[in-house]
Parts: sequence; C-alpha cells; structure tokens
Amino acid sequence: MTTLKFVPYSSAFDTGFWHELTRRKLEVYRLDSSNQSIFGYYANDANDNMPALFNVDHQCFDENNKISNQQQLYSVNGTLKLVNTIEEFKTFDIDSALKTESSLLWNDFVQGSTLENPQKLNRFYLLIFADLKKYIYHYWFAFPTFLVPTAFNLSSPVKPIGEQFSSDEIGAISKTLEANKLHACCLHREQNSSFAVINLKQAVENLNEKPQSASEYIFIVNDPSTDPVHPGWPVRNLLTLLYYHLRAVEQLNVICWRERFRDDQQYVNHSLYLQLKPESISNIGDAVPPSAGWEKNERQRLGSRQVNLSTSMNPIHLAETAVGLNLKLMKWRLAPEIDLESLEKMHCLLLGAGTLGCNVARCLMAWGVKHVTFVDNSRISYSNPVRQTLFTFQDSCENRPKAQAAADALKAIYPGIKSIGYDLTIPMPGHAVGESTIEKVKEDVNLLHDLIRQHDVLFLLTDSRESRWLPTVIGAVEQKLVLCCAVGFDSYVIIRHGVPAKESDTPPTRYKNFLRGDKLGCYFCNDIVAPGDSSIDRTLDQQCTVTRPGISMMASALSVELLVSIMQHPLRLAYSEIKTS
Amino acid sequence: MTTLKFVPYSSAFDTGFWHELTRRKLEVYRLDSSNQSIFGYYANDANDNMPALFNVDHQCFDENNKISNQQQLYSVNGTLKLVNTIEEFKTFDIDSALKTESSLLWNDFVQGSTLENPQKLNRFYLLIFADLKKYIYHYWFAFPTFLVPTAFNLSSPVKPIGEQFSSDEIGAISKTLEANKLHACCLHREQNSSFAVINLKQAVENLNEKPQSASEYIFIVNDPSTDPVHPGWPVRNLLTLLYYHLRAVEQLNVICWRERFRDDQQYVNHSLYLQLKPESISNIGDAVPPSAGWEKNERQRLGSRQVNLSTSMNPIHLAETAVGLNLKLMKWRLAPEIDLESLEKMHCLLLGAGTLGCNVARCLMAWGVKHVTFVDNSRISYSNPVRQTLFTFQDSCENRPKAQAAADALKAIYPGIKSIGYDLTIPMPGHAVGESTIEKVKEDVNLLHDLIRQHDVLFLLTDSRESRWLPTVIGAVEQKLVLCCAVGFDSYVIIRHGVPAKESDTPPTRYKNFLRGDKLGCYFCNDIVAPGDSSIDRTLDQQCTVTRPGISMMASALSVELLVSIMQHPLRLAYSEIKTS
Repeated sequence: MTTLKFVPYSSAFDTGFWHELTRRKLEVYRLDSSNQSIFGYYANDANDNMPALFNVDHQCFDENNKISNQQQLYSVNGTLKLVNTIEEFKTFDIDSALKTESSLLWNDFVQGSTLENPQKLNRFYLLIFADLKKYIYHYWFAFPTFLVPTAFNLSSPVKPIGEQFSSDEIGAISKTLEANKLHACCLHREQNSSFAVINLKQAVENLNEKPQSASEYIFIVNDPSTDPVHPGWPVRNLLTLLYYHLRAVEQLNVICWRERFRDDQQYVNHSLYLQLKPESISNIGDAVPPSAGWEKNERQRLGSRQVNLSTSMNPIHLAETAVGLNLKLMKWRLAPEIDLESLEKMHCLLLGAGTLGCNVARCLMAWGVKHVTFVDNSRISYSNPVRQTLFTFQDSCENRPKAQAAADALKAIYPGIKSIGYDLTIPMPGHAVGESTIEKVKEDVNLLHDLIRQHDVLFLLTDSRESRWLPTVIGAVEQKLVLCCAVGFDSYVIIRHGVPAKESDTPPTRYKNFLRGDKLGCYFCNDIVAPGDSSIDRTLDQQCTVTRPGISMMASALSVELLVSIMQHPLRLAYSEIKTS
Repeated sequence: MTTLKFVPYSSAFDTGFWHELTRRKLEVYRLDSSNQSIFGYYANDANDNMPALFNVDHQCFDENNKISNQQQLYSVNGTLKLVNTIEEFKTFDIDSALKTESSLLWNDFVQGSTLENPQKLNRFYLLIFADLKKYIYHYWFAFPTFLVPTAFNLSSPVKPIGEQFSSDEIGAISKTLEANKLHACCLHREQNSSFAVINLKQAVENLNEKPQSASEYIFIVNDPSTDPVHPGWPVRNLLTLLYYHLRAVEQLNVICWRERFRDDQQYVNHSLYLQLKPESISNIGDAVPPSAGWEKNERQRLGSRQVNLSTSMNPIHLAETAVGLNLKLMKWRLAPEIDLESLEKMHCLLLGAGTLGCNVARCLMAWGVKHVTFVDNSRISYSNPVRQTLFTFQDSCENRPKAQAAADALKAIYPGIKSIGYDLTIPMPGHAVGESTIEKVKEDVNLLHDLIRQHDVLFLLTDSRESRWLPTVIGAVEQKLVLCCAVGFDSYVIIRHGVPAKESDTPPTRYKNFLRGDKLGCYFCNDIVAPGDSSIDRTLDQQCTVTRPGISMMASALSVELLVSIMQHPLRLAYSEIKTS
C-alpha cells in the first residue's frame, strides 16, 4: 500500500503587495508589530509543471477579505507579522509562531467550523521585515499542516479522474460543481447517474451514520497542485480534517479538482482521483497535534527569503515613495499629529529665484510640498551658483533665466514635483513706466495677479523692497498667506503678513482672545517711507545683497518652518480660505 | 599756407587691464572713488592704416610707472576716476575733470618741467564705471590738448622724411636716436653731416638766443600716428609747448618719428617731416588755455563707450572672479577686517556626505573655501536628493557613491574648487571586525589617519555616534580643529572640540585669562556610555535620522560660521598649527 505525498505551497508575491505593505507600514502600522489579519489565495487552474502557487497581492490587506471576482481563486486567511528590525526578524521564534497559527487551524477543525466553512481548511503565517530604506523585504511564509496521521495510505494508486470515471460522469461532476465554488465539498452519487452536492458537515454525518455507503460519496477539494500524482496542501488538510471526524469509514474517495479554461473550453481531466483507507485520529482530541509548514527557501533549506524591489521598481515611483519616507517617519513617534497632507497639496508661489528662492524651494520640497512656481526676471550669472543652490556653473555659462532653471532643477532632484518658472518682472513703485512699456506692464500685473490667485501661499524673496509691494497688496486682496523673508549681513527678517478677514468670518469662540491672523501687519506696515526705486545710485556692495553666506539657509529653513507651523494650527490662516485641493 | 591737422588717440584696452581693475576695485579701492594715478602708453611702430593707439594694460596700475622693457613704448601719466554708480558716471562733470587734467599738463608746460622731461607732453583722464556683477565696463577717455594756437601753419606741405633728407642723413639721424629713447628731443646738425642730440630745454634756449640758426635744429617726437600727412597727439602737444617757449624763431623743423622693425630690419621712411612757421603764444601766460580731448565713441560722437567682457572672458576665470565678488564686498563696508584668505587656503575634511555634509560643503564653498574632501561609505538612494542638496534623481537611479557624487557636484557648481570623494567606511567601536576584514580595517584606519593629517579642519557629519569616535581621537592626536554637528528632530548640536596644546605652546599674556582652546572638551567628553554599535535592533524611524527638513540647513550654516569665527581670532585654534598654505 502506497502512501500519499503532497506538494507544498510555493509563495508568490505580486509587486502590488509590497507597495501596499510599504504604504501601510509608513502610514498605518508604523511601529506597530502586532499580528495583522490578511489573506492570500490559491487557484486550481495552473498550467502543467507549475508549482502550487500561493499568492498575495495588494488586495490581501482588505478587511472584507474580498478578492476581485475572478473565477477559481480560493482565499486563505492568515496572519501578517511585520517586525521592526532585522535583528527581530533573524531571532524570531518561528516554532512558537507556527504553533499559535496551527492551533487556530486545529480549533476550527475540531470544533467543526471548518466542516461548515471549508475556507478554513488552510491558514498561513507571514513574517516580514521591510527594509524600506533599501526596498529589500525579508520574508518567511508558513502554511501550517499537521503531522498526524503520520501517513495517508492509498487503497489504489493516484490516477487521473478519466481513469476512474467515464466522460459522462466527469461532465456530470463538472456541471454539478459549476454552481458550487467552495474550497471543498462532497458529491453524492444519485440513482440517475447524476451527483448532488452536500456540504462537508452533512457528508461526515451521513458517513458516520452509514459507514458502508462510503463508495457513494466523493469528496471534492480544489487543488493548487499540478503534479500528476501529488496533490497540494488543501487536500492534505482536508484529509486530516476528515480522518479526525470520520469514524468507522473504510473507504474515502477524493477528487483533487483541477480545471483549466482555454479558449472557453473547460479541461478537468488532469484532476486526480484518490482512494484512501482512513484511520481515525479522533483519539488525539483537542490537543493541537505537532505541525509543520515553514516554507523552504531557494536553496531548499528552512530559511527566509528576500526580495529586492529597488532594481525592479519604476525609479520615479521609487523616488515618490522614498521622498515620503522621511516625512512619514515623523508621524511614527516624534509628531504623530503632524499634518503633512495639506503641505503636499499646497501651491507655493516663490517671487524671486535667487539665494532665498533656491533654498526656500529646497526646504519646501523636503517638507513634501509638490507644487512650486518661481517668478524671477534675471538670468544666472557666474557668481550665483555657489550661493543659489539650484544652479550650476553650466547654467551660468548659458546665462539661463533663473525661474526656468530653478524649476528644471527641482524636477531633476525629484521628478514628482510640479514646478514652473515665469520670467517676469514684477512691476514696482518708483520705477518709471515709459509710454512704450505701458501695455507690457499691464500684462505683467495681470499675470502676477493670476499667479497669486492660483496659489495658496506667496513667498516674497526678491532683492529689493519695492518689488515686494505689489505682491503684498495683491496677496492681501486675494486673501493669500504671504511670507516675507529678507536677509542682510547681520540679520534677517521673516514676516507673516496678516490675511484680511472676510466679513462673514466669525472666529470660533475659543480663539476669540487670540491675536487674529487678520490683525497682523505686513512688510510695509511700519514703513515711514513709501517704496521707491532703490536701485538708483547704488554702489556695487549696495546692489548685491552682501550677506554672510549661511544666513539665507537659516532664514529659508525658518520661513518654511513658519509655514509648516501655520498649517498645523486649526484655524490655519485664520478665517481665510486656503485651497487644499 | 596750409594748416597742420592731427590724428587723435584711439584708446585700446588689454583685457588684463579690466581684470586688474576688477581686482583692485574689489580688494583695494572698494568704495574709494578718488582720483588714482595710473599710466598708459603709445608706440611709434604701428602698421600703416592703424589708428594712433593709446594702450592701457594690467601694468598700468604700477606705482613705479614701469612698462615691461619693450622697445618703442612711450608711457603717459594719467588719472583714473572709478565711480561707484552708473548714475554718477552718466552725470559726471566732464568739463571740470578735463579742465583739472589740462591744468596739470599746462603747469608742466609753462614751468618748463616738460622741456626737461618730455614724458610730460601728454596726460590722460580715464572715467570708468565697472558693473562687476555683469562684467560690463563703461569708460570714457580724455587726452587733453590745447586750443591755442588756433592753427599750426605749415611753411611747406607735410612730407615723408625721405623727401627732405638723403638716405645717409636718415641713417645718421636714426643712429643718433638709437641711444636716446625719449618721447621727444632735438637734433642739432653738426658740421660733419652728423647730428647731436640735445634736450628740449637746451634747444629752446639755443633758439631763443640765436633765432636765425633755426634751420640747424630738428625737433624729434615719437609719433603714434600712421597717417601719411597727419601726425598724432604728442606732436600737437610738442608744438604747443614750443610755440609757448620759442620767441622770435621763424622756422621750426620737426620729424614725427615712426620706426618699424620687421625681420630685424629698421624702417623709418614713413616718418614725417614738418616745417612750420611758429607764432608765439607766450602772451597767454600762466592761465590755462581752453582745452579739448574727450574721445569720441564708436558713432563718432562725444560719448562714453562700454565693453562687455562677460562674453569674451574664459568662463572658468569669470566664475572665479564672480565667486570672490560677494565675499570681497563684505570688506568694503560691513566687515573690513574679515580674513577670508585663510578660509580660501584651508583644507576641509567632511566625514559624511549626507544631509549635513552636502549643506556644510555648500556653505564652505559660499564662504570661499577651495579645498573640500568628502568621506562616506554609502550610496545615493531615492530618498536622498530632496534633502541632500548635492544630489539629483539621476544620481539615485545610478546608485552612485555619495562621496564621489558630492565632490563632482561641487565641481559642477564651481569648477575652481578642489574636491575629492573617498568611499571609505570609518572603523567604529562596537562593530565587530571579522578575521577576514582585519587587513581592510587596518587600511581604512591608515587612510583616515592620512586624510586627517592632510587637512586643517574636520567636520564630523556622520549619522551615528560611534563613527565619530575614531576621527575625534585622531583629530586630537594630530591637533586639528574638529567641528562636530549632529541633528535631531527638535534640536541640533554643534561642538567645537578642543585642540590639545603642544608642550611648547605658551599663550600670549593677554589671553592668559581666556578659556583656552586646548581646554575645550569633545563630543564624547560628557558621555557616560562608551560608543557602541547603535545600528543594531533599530526600527526604521531610528535608522533614518528623522529631522525637521530645515534643521540641517540651519545647523550646517552655523557650523561653518563657527569655523569662520574661529579663523578670525588672533589665536585661531589656540596654539595649534593650522596649515594655511
């Protein structure tokens, strides 16, 4: 008498699984390494010579356990254990984890719920350490199965169903199963050479009542294996379940159901027919029997596997994820409440793409801002690149317009950013407008106004006082947040302009006593001199802003922090709209 | 009787003049716009059809008025007026300036010093506004000459000397002049058909004594003009001088001396011979007569010219100058005493080319540091470029080593920088060294030691505590300045390590009571835990330094400012050597 052997699952990951895992780790689980319920699935339609695949993909985290309504996919519940360090992964107590997982399976077996719901025939355990800095994922699957009975004895050799059943019978079986997409069930041979489906529980009860009718019952289990003699894991677990529940039955007929559809034609003849002589294992009772199931690695040893996605992922997508990484990590421990989403959606307009403009743009990008527009009217000269951190020597050789070059540089750093540069002269009080340029200046005013309207936040980063005047006025009219940053040699100034309130705005009661955002002043509020042409009659050191080289970095970083802080306040700009979509 | 007309000077600049002017403006004159003495020169060897060039080059600022010992260059003293603004240039009082310059010339004429030193026959005035941000130079030359007499009447038409003198005579004249390289002189025709040189003063005295001997005297003046009938400005001024000093002379013989050497052969036959009938102008006395002399511009109108060097200069040299510009401007007004030279010569070693390393390098470069070496053992990943300001998305796609990429980026920003990157793992306490890696680790220690020895300043910018340990120890042994900068989420720390004193060091008395640099602690001084492997068992948010994105910019800028401050102190590192060459 030969013994039945089984083909273990081979785990198969869809890349989507890793993406979703990465997202959830960063945004949802964070440091939480407790067990998470997930599911996977197998199919019974694989081509010959394929391993018995066990699949996980991006849907597997869905709490409703819904697989897309593809045919022939059979879901399996499992446990995801996502540990935080490689050390934790390497020293993980796999025996204990398998025992816990097996006992869940066994409890369902002995309490009969698996008989009622054959989806419970399988479980899995998935241990993962995700090195999200490198996109290397260490993982180890366990598909628990039991070491009892020690052997499944076959009454006759395993054979294709065609050798046991006639074509008509197979057609009848197939037709009967069509409406019954359970993981496993039982067929009862009726008088008119047709078959009736009964559930496992009913079949076990019938057989225990009338053991001698065993030949009328054929158990059906959807089988992921494609091997011509060895069925897969679901068959093994079904047999264990039946051996436990069946009493004096001497014969057990099982079809390991495999079906393929090719060109709308169904093929099922590679399904296997098993005839076994069960021996009851009910004597072991509730105690969880010894189990096995950790998947072997590529070298066929017990050990974990790893997947390196950094080489196969779309680099732009990789960058996208990676850039979010540092920011999302803030929320794990240090600042769980921080609102980064509103920064990501914010549209920032930078007036000036010089030393301050470059550094402010870099800081915004590092904070996760995705929309940065530059306005500047000058071109890159040789002295710029050492201080204006978005430009290179080559840019100065080509004398490129700063705004465009800055936008291009941002995209070269991070392709996910949306950045445009406008080569535009901001109209300034005190600067004469000749007859011939009136139309051009009007156009410039309109373009500036449009740009301010289209953005949520304005940064004033130009190198003269008067160029900040018109944007200050338009910013107030359009109720936009205006941040003004200016550097000197010894000092710098960062001003948050007040955002005028709309008449309909009423502050929530608890903020009544606070300094309201609409009561704040602007860059020009304390001036006793009207802005005029400050470029006339200035020596070289008055034309170039002579500053200590590091001041711009400090002032830029703090300006952006001020913006980030404002966005964390419940009132944001205090009563003014901020477009966040 | 025809009137003699003259060819005015055409100014000609050697590019070296502008470079030297730029350097002096930035480093020496700064805001000083008072008159500066400079000189220019003319030659008498130009090819036919060339204008009468008046040259200025880089030597013209030399206080000793030395032209390189080229033959046939005749220097002219002048005044450089370098104004500070374009408005000052445009509204400049050119009449008054010319009057002042002319009076200098006239005083030398009437007081006789020009007769003794014919170099004083000419002066020039050069008004300049240098737009050093754009390398555009606005300039206007004046070559003062006098409007008296109103005409110079020729006794006979201007002719080449060959029509007046025989070859032998010309040969004799030439031979006589060979030893007398004065701007102008006089020849007396001797009996033996040879000539004797006498100076102008002597000639004037002789002629005033014996006016009837006028035909024996031939005045020689080196002439920049190449025109076949019109001599140049020096001739005009010589005639004015002689008309002023000569009394009853009725005949004046003048040779406008022009000589070319081609293939070691002297050609002088294109020199002009003039015969004039002078009328004394001595009646005008000391009063400075009306003058003229502002050069016409390209459109032959009275007006300034401009030269744009940005397109013709070597871009690398342009960048070199431009980068110094902002720094040098500091010394004009805001911090005249600041020592930037020692920064330029300093060799900085940056351990770590991550967020801090990139920003520190950028700040150093902006402060004018020219030698930056990076050490890092990691490669650029997708999350890096948005914060590590020397890298781009492309670098992360190529997974480039950080140290090398950072060095390359610095050179792309400013080709004048000397930067190298070492892909080196700093040996760390607590990190196990296996048998197989012992030799490699020893090599790494030696390389690190060599690097520290070769540099003046070390920045500790790595992302773990233990990687800072070995450089701290070697830095102390080698008596190098060590600056340690580390960032967290809420805070950052910048530490200047103490530099151990050499036994022979004794502090100058006035610093006896100061906190001595050798008494300062280091990053590890207050630690109660020995440095160990801090990378083990750390979750993702502990592995990545989770900081607010702007903190690195602030900390980097301040670290570099600390270095700059230390370099301003008379004791520098306090008693330790700092290599500044």
